[in-house]
Amino acid sequence: MPNNRKIMPRETAAFQGERGAFSEEAARRLLDPDVHVAPCQSFQEVFEKLKSRQVTAAVIPIENSLHGSVHENYDHLLNYDFQITGETSVRIVHNLIAPPGVSFRQIRKVYSHPVALNQCLKFFAQNPQIEKVPFYDTAGSVKMVLEKGLRDAGAIASAIAAEIYGGRILKKSIEDDRQNFTRFFLLRRKDYKPRHAPEAPRGWKTSVVFTTRNIPGALFRALSAFALRDLNLAKIESRPLRGKPWEYLFYLDFMGHMEEERCRNALRHLGELADFLRVLGCYPRGA
Amino acid sequence: MPNNRKIMPRETAAFQGERGAFSEEAARRLLDPDVHVAPCQSFQEVFEKLKSRQVTAAVIPIENSLHGSVHENYDHLLNYDFQITGETSVRIVHNLIAPPGVSFRQIRKVYSHPVALNQCLKFFAQNPQIEKVPFYDTAGSVKMVLEKGLRDAGAIASAIAAEIYGGRILKKSIEDDRQNFTRFFLLRRKDYKPRHAPEAPRGWKTSVVFTTRNIPGALFRALSAFALRDLNLAKIESRPLRGKPWEYLFYLDFMGHMEEERCRNALRHLGELADFLRVLGCYPRGA
Repeated sequence: MPNNRKIMPRETAAFQGERGAFSEEAARRLLDPDVHVAPCQSFQEVFEKLKSRQVTAAVIPIENSLHGSVHENYDHLLNYDFQITGETSVRIVHNLIAPPGVSFRQIRKVYSHPVALNQCLKFFAQNPQIEKVPFYDTAGSVKMVLEKGLRDAGAIASAIAAEIYGGRILKKSIEDDRQNFTRFFLLRRKDYKPRHAPEAPRGWKTSVVFTTRNIPGALFRALSAFALRDLNLAKIESRPLRGKPWEYLFYLDFMGHMEEERCRNALRHLGELADFLRVLGCYPRGA
Repeated sequence: MPNNRKIMPRETAAFQGERGAFSEEAARRLLDPDVHVAPCQSFQEVFEKLKSRQVTAAVIPIENSLHGSVHENYDHLLNYDFQITGETSVRIVHNLIAPPGVSFRQIRKVYSHPVALNQCLKFFAQNPQIEKVPFYDTAGSVKMVLEKGLRDAGAIASAIAAEIYGGRILKKSIEDDRQNFTRFFLLRRKDYKPRHAPEAPRGWKTSVVFTTRNIPGALFRALSAFALRDLNLAKIESRPLRGKPWEYLFYLDFMGHMEEERCRNALRHLGELADFLRVLGCYPRGA
């Protein structure tokens, strides 16, 4: 998106995690390589910062190819009234990062979030001289190792974390599974208007959340709104509503722009069948 | 299930994690309060132990109400040919645990997995004198604090972990969100036959995985197999097939026993519409 810089000179994007988190990589792709960022401790803080206009955008993970949907962020999407204006998928590449001047042979400890450590088990099996040390955050472990100037330790994190904290990548892509992707949403307040019409070279996608009545075939009927209009689905997921056995919330993404006639018709039709329906956003399909 | 002890005197259940993990709580509920257990480092090891007959059963988490489906275990379910014979949902209750004789006032550090630490943020906000220290495992942090006999430290984990390692619960249920449930499956080899017919007071559930052809309305048609027979769905989730844009794997659970006539008909109908279909198991619906 080479034009974003001119269009939106004062973008600041909130995300959860330390500087150099994978969310920052997503923010750079969705907005601008030089985007200003506001790291937050929690997803709730990310949403609050967008609501209180401390930032112009927010970037949140919504699902991971190994770990499933981030229900917490779907809950926030329902509690706050923002719009999804973009999506992107980031491959989770884990790198071994150390202070400049430290060689691989010196490394005896590697810090990172336990989930990241457990995604690099082959690396640790091949290097039994290296101890895994759990840390609260991937990028945060790079920050700590660099700030303390440790000479026998490294950290596992994104390439962006190495760049931000001045670390050197000793081993690239040491993760066991290369099919580890996280999908991120770009969020804006409802009053946001782009200065130029966004382009969608791969087409448009619309995300909705709805609940259905507690009867057999309710989802089948709901999907008829899309099937009868030849609209392709890109995601469907049920989530039980706690305290309401047999009632479900559905996350659904379909291909199309909500202002197209057949999409408008499908949404009106779905609205007749659902107890509750909310359009979360309409955005160019990501790579 | 009070009769299990007599029925299966030599049950051993494999699960991922240290002794005292939430999976052990699920194993006790699904099998027997005194079940023998085989803790494993990875989910892969759990499946291998069941395959090689080192254990009679395996207990795996399949979805969490905050974090979504555990796709890795769905992948293992497809790669190994076992059967799901039970399910249960465990509420994730985090407790502050310390060695006997250590009082709450002495605690300055609390060890646990970062995910658990982040689920107790209100507790840490109310107790700023206590430092969060990341550890590789919840139950493992109790084991470490007890083995080292630390006098200024505690750990956050399940009540079972306190019991197993001889810790004392200083604060019960310090998690921020009480609506944090993990659903577990009980797995058996295909040649397993229960000595007595299992009971299903809340009815039966059947879990299937299928893929559909890459055409609009494919899922709609697939769901017709259930809707036209008034079979209630309990879960539906799409998962993109990597490297095959527009092709999806679907996880689907429906209410009913696969040997009932209308369920058999629905599965045969689904088989006509799906490129690939596998019944993962048929089991009494959990609480």
